[in-house]
Amino acid sequence: MKLPKAAVERIIRNAGAERVSGEAVEELRSAIEELGAEIAADASEMADYAGRKTIEKEDIDMAVRH
Amino acid sequence: MKLPKAAVERIIRNAGAERVSGEAVEELRSAIEELGAEIAADASEMADYAGRKTIEKEDIDMAVRH
Repeated sequence: MKLPKAAVERIIRNAGAERVSGEAVEELRSAIEELGAEIAADASEMADYAGRKTIEKEDIDMAVRH
Repeated sequence: MKLPKAAVERIIRNAGAERVSGEAVEELRSAIEELGAEIAADASEMADYAGRKTIEKEDIDMAVRH
């Protein structure tokens, strides 16, 4: 499931953009999906490291910080 | 509009997570919304810098790289 374009476009509009191209929305969607996947992979390692099978909020926080 | 939880949870599951808490999904959603907003704000500056009112794909790329 991809992140919906409307939600990604809203993020850009909230940043103060007057106009934004469709390709820019697609590019930001792709970028944040990649960043999200990297954080999730790091969080999964953090959970393993802590001896858990469930990814918890603290694993996401650790992944974002490290 | 927030990014939908189902899409964010899918990103975590695709990273190989067996189990994930609801709070972890909420935390990742919040993290990627913040990162997205930072990229969008930088992209808006890049478009200004290039003398455009429309944010284009290249502005997002520049924002991600810088």
